[in-house]
Amino acid sequence: MDQIRNLLKAASQKYNKSLPHQDSCRDLVLACHSKLSSESTFRNFGLFSGRPLVTYNIFQLGTVLSRPIRPDIYIADYQTFINMYDAFEESLGNKPLLWQDENITRANSIVYTSVMSVACCYDLWQRGSRKTPGTFFEILMAGLLQKMLPRAQFSKHIPLASLLNDNETLEGVETVKNVDQDNEEGASVSTDLVIRMPSRPGGIVIPLKITTRERIVQPFAHQRILDSAFGQGQYQSLLVCISETQLDDKTQSVKQVCVPGTVKLFQKYLAPLQGLYYCDLPQRYAAADMQKILPVRLVGHLFKDVYDLLQAPTANDS
Amino acid sequence: MDQIRNLLKAASQKYNKSLPHQDSCRDLVLACHSKLSSESTFRNFGLFSGRPLVTYNIFQLGTVLSRPIRPDIYIADYQTFINMYDAFEESLGNKPLLWQDENITRANSIVYTSVMSVACCYDLWQRGSRKTPGTFFEILMAGLLQKMLPRAQFSKHIPLASLLNDNETLEGVETVKNVDQDNEEGASVSTDLVIRMPSRPGGIVIPLKITTRERIVQPFAHQRILDSAFGQGQYQSLLVCISETQLDDKTQSVKQVCVPGTVKLFQKYLAPLQGLYYCDLPQRYAAADMQKILPVRLVGHLFKDVYDLLQAPTANDS
Repeated sequence: MDQIRNLLKAASQKYNKSLPHQDSCRDLVLACHSKLSSESTFRNFGLFSGRPLVTYNIFQLGTVLSRPIRPDIYIADYQTFINMYDAFEESLGNKPLLWQDENITRANSIVYTSVMSVACCYDLWQRGSRKTPGTFFEILMAGLLQKMLPRAQFSKHIPLASLLNDNETLEGVETVKNVDQDNEEGASVSTDLVIRMPSRPGGIVIPLKITTRERIVQPFAHQRILDSAFGQGQYQSLLVCISETQLDDKTQSVKQVCVPGTVKLFQKYLAPLQGLYYCDLPQRYAAADMQKILPVRLVGHLFKDVYDLLQAPTANDS
Repeated sequence: MDQIRNLLKAASQKYNKSLPHQDSCRDLVLACHSKLSSESTFRNFGLFSGRPLVTYNIFQLGTVLSRPIRPDIYIADYQTFINMYDAFEESLGNKPLLWQDENITRANSIVYTSVMSVACCYDLWQRGSRKTPGTFFEILMAGLLQKMLPRAQFSKHIPLASLLNDNETLEGVETVKNVDQDNEEGASVSTDLVIRMPSRPGGIVIPLKITTRERIVQPFAHQRILDSAFGQGQYQSLLVCISETQLDDKTQSVKQVCVPGTVKLFQKYLAPLQGLYYCDLPQRYAAADMQKILPVRLVGHLFKDVYDLLQAPTANDS
């Protein structure tokens, strides 16, 4: 794990300094993928009993189990994964406007395999680092989106200091994960990723969460604040997740933990998100009653959707 | 711990059946208080380096440490605690309108000592049960407030089914802690405690959290939904917490983890809470810039404030 920790540290440091970090991400992902396939067992775990049934695997090391993995999305063969990863990354340079279904499926599998490789390594070999996979998810997605949008400005927060009118140097919405007792007022940012185009007001906010759980409310609340502060339509939020799964050891099955009623309430009474994206899309969220209220799609669609949103004419253009 | 688990189960079952459960709470609290003082060491841990400095203790069992405890709020002497507990409970029957400072301090210490006794027992002897102390906090406060308001109606959720207009049997805002795969749409309630008076519309919502962390946004978001759905002023939220402390093992000190900028943003741009209450009030939240935006007070004040709010004339009375 020393090598993996160092690779993650390198990727993270470059990302925090706004330096190119895609190569570091690729190195890390390949190291994790390779360690998993050579040092652990990838085996069938059980079913999610939806319609249709969904098969989940796990990585196992002795008695330690990783989180559940969709074997139909995870690219287990190392060489196939490298080839697809490189082809995907290259395709981002050519704009995703003409992406077909196969490009979308590939993008979805690459993001899933990359994030889950890292997450499962930490599940098996360094279980205490609960937040590491989420941090890597953010770093990876920033790198991929930067590759697709070389002219865009990326940041991790939206300055909100002026909103408070009390001379605080607040830079964004503080998150507890970042809060430091000595620097509490300046601590920032739970918006994860903000993408702006030069010469356009507003931008796209991309909260990234491996899984939402009780944090599902955050992106809706932040969208509401942005609507109140900057006017509706200036910022659009796309919530991007990996899955909502939970192992059930007793029954050797997998649950997809969903809160559709809550999501609908938030969408209707807090502030509407532009879209909700999953690599492993929970069946409950794919249902028609949800889609009617909030578009829910594969992460594979995200790239084109972000590209389209940033190219679309704004109200100011007319 | 078997006895303590059984006492908690008894209190919880009565509470869920809306039966009187104060005696069960008292039995549980006294069992925990007594176990802690006879089987663990209550010793000084370190300081929170605020102005003024604040001393924190911990309960210790071998190498296992409890959460930090304010020795000036926690009533460590068993007989003193019983006497004060009983006097406090009796005083709730006489309405808190004429409460003096000493009554407020006593109420604050009783709630703190009760909840922390149970929490520290679970810290030392059953560390896996992360959510148990929070559940007990809810059960205890419901019992105490019921004693004070015998005519009020208590519930755990606000029906919101009609808001969604899609024939779901949703009963409230689902919380992940309660979500059950087999019953997802009917799962309910993160509003914790709702108090209504007969013949009055709306009511008081009391979210109860031992500590807020990244869940601080929830009560503001729920207040926003209630404002949107029922009109502003129908429901008022009072967020009630124990503390915001975190042990720092390395420096043998205690942090008070605060996010004042976030709280101000939420209060201004999501929806305003009526008040924020703590047993161990973090210094940062007591500062003038916070008080200007959102009243922050001791839990000892809560009882009178709830009483006053429910007696106040409504717009409909005029």
